[in-house]
Amino acid sequence: MRVVCLAGGVGGAKLADGLQQIVAPGDLTVVVNTGDDLERHGLAVCPDHDTVLYTLAGIADPVQGWGIAGETFGVAAQLAQLGEDTWFRLGDRDIATHLYRTERLRAGARPTEVALDLAHRLGVRTRILPMTDATVRTRVRTDAGWLDFQDYFVRLHQEPEVREVRFEGVDAATVTPEVREAFRAAETIVVAPSNPIVSIGPILAVPGLLGEIAAARARGVPAVGVSGIVRGKALRGPADRMLATLGDESSALGVARRYAAVGLLDVFVIDRQDEALADTVRAIGLEVVVTDTIMTDGASRAALAQTMVESATARAATRRRP
Amino acid sequence: MRVVCLAGGVGGAKLADGLQQIVAPGDLTVVVNTGDDLERHGLAVCPDHDTVLYTLAGIADPVQGWGIAGETFGVAAQLAQLGEDTWFRLGDRDIATHLYRTERLRAGARPTEVALDLAHRLGVRTRILPMTDATVRTRVRTDAGWLDFQDYFVRLHQEPEVREVRFEGVDAATVTPEVREAFRAAETIVVAPSNPIVSIGPILAVPGLLGEIAAARARGVPAVGVSGIVRGKALRGPADRMLATLGDESSALGVARRYAAVGLLDVFVIDRQDEALADTVRAIGLEVVVTDTIMTDGASRAALAQTMVESATARAATRRRP
Repeated sequence: MRVVCLAGGVGGAKLADGLQQIVAPGDLTVVVNTGDDLERHGLAVCPDHDTVLYTLAGIADPVQGWGIAGETFGVAAQLAQLGEDTWFRLGDRDIATHLYRTERLRAGARPTEVALDLAHRLGVRTRILPMTDATVRTRVRTDAGWLDFQDYFVRLHQEPEVREVRFEGVDAATVTPEVREAFRAAETIVVAPSNPIVSIGPILAVPGLLGEIAAARARGVPAVGVSGIVRGKALRGPADRMLATLGDESSALGVARRYAAVGLLDVFVIDRQDEALADTVRAIGLEVVVTDTIMTDGASRAALAQTMVESATARAATRRRP
Repeated sequence: MRVVCLAGGVGGAKLADGLQQIVAPGDLTVVVNTGDDLERHGLAVCPDHDTVLYTLAGIADPVQGWGIAGETFGVAAQLAQLGEDTWFRLGDRDIATHLYRTERLRAGARPTEVALDLAHRLGVRTRILPMTDATVRTRVRTDAGWLDFQDYFVRLHQEPEVREVRFEGVDAATVTPEVREAFRAAETIVVAPSNPIVSIGPILAVPGLLGEIAAARARGVPAVGVSGIVRGKALRGPADRMLATLGDESSALGVARRYAAVGLLDVFVIDRQDEALADTVRAIGLEVVVTDTIMTDGASRAALAQTMVESATARAATRRRP
């Protein structure tokens, strides 16, 4: 069962880990958001990619969900001594990843090649692919003006309300050969419980990428998504408040509507706590599956992954019947 | 008393620390060797400069004499996990220096500007100046062929014998305005007990630099050096073996001859253990001062610095007498 999963950071990494547990080694491809990538201290930093990488390599910090377990902060401490701005606090082991990446990119490698090498070097058999090799930068307009995404997300702790979102550079971005090949070989497409606006949004904004998904679905490949918002609250991050300030409903229904609007999904998974929303989501044309969606450990990650893949497969079987 | 000190790594840093203790704040300039600079993991690393910087900032590792005290090695450990070659083992806090430097250089700053900023940011009032802003790379010919300096020095633990030394790029190097200004304002020139071939040698090879020293001496500015070889053994590093394989005497006399050959010095300081060499050194035209030269603590660094500056000053006074 070849699965392609669209993912942002922590929620995406957890579901990717669940999928990696249940599919055959090498059959999983994770397409990650690069809109929140940034340069810090001259290093190319890819937060969503690295969260997925560290999680799938089994070295992620189990408490915070990102970064590497047992991390030290000597570089950051000394950068602070030098008077450098260290609000984006990079761990020492994490910096090794950025050094490797930055050196490879400066030598002319594509981001996709570097990502494949990093996974290989950490023993990860899942393919973790940047959504594009082009530079795309998510920016948000707040009452204080336009901000770089990490400026809003990390430095300002997501405190300002987001009035508008823009993915700078996305118009010139293209789908990579590796992402295209993944969709063409896919048997199931899974959308992780990541922020629909700033994690999944940039991926879908890459010109041609939604077309690859549409072509796969036209071939009968099912696409299944899951809400990262439960009982109106984002499991992590500011997705609930973003949906509200951007004029959507701050709930699983709001997420479903965003995905339905671009024809992304066949099946949408909502949490048992949101069962009351099931009929409304069905009314917008999605099949609905109700289950436990909150991933607290490895078993619950695998369970959600299993439910999503099975419900997608069941849906595909139904469609194949005359 | 404005002092300019020519220095390599650990020995140079110790004497520079002694000088910093005895001259007025801001009156010391240290011109450092850049021939052993290198790029590792995409970072611009300047070992001699940083040893001097950390020593003068009071943060050097007191045991090994280079690197930062209390260092951790998280970046290096993770780079090794990624399969990178980590024979040049960089500490985490040390990497902060290289990140800062690399980012500034890529943004177009001159190495001298970055060095001045680093010192300022670490509260060091001594001016630490790269010998040139040009890229100069020391290479050594061994029985195994030509090697980059750090390849020989760190990776191969100075095991191969050195048959020839070359400073690549030095022909195109120039004296910086800051180094020129330092020599023009100097009242005493001090040559540290660094390796005469690969630490002081590259500095003297910068076109125009010996000319600045000659011009200062012609104005009556005394120049004093000290041997880093005592009883035929280098206090640190391979200077004794290098002198031998390059055809010089492996002793304080061999060092004195090297400096006398280029007209560098007025006064040469040798250790009490080498007192028997005093007359032979005098015979090559240098004034000789015999004292304790081994710097084991802050007090002995200051004492050697004091003896060197005083003997240089006394020599200058003698010359001014008709």
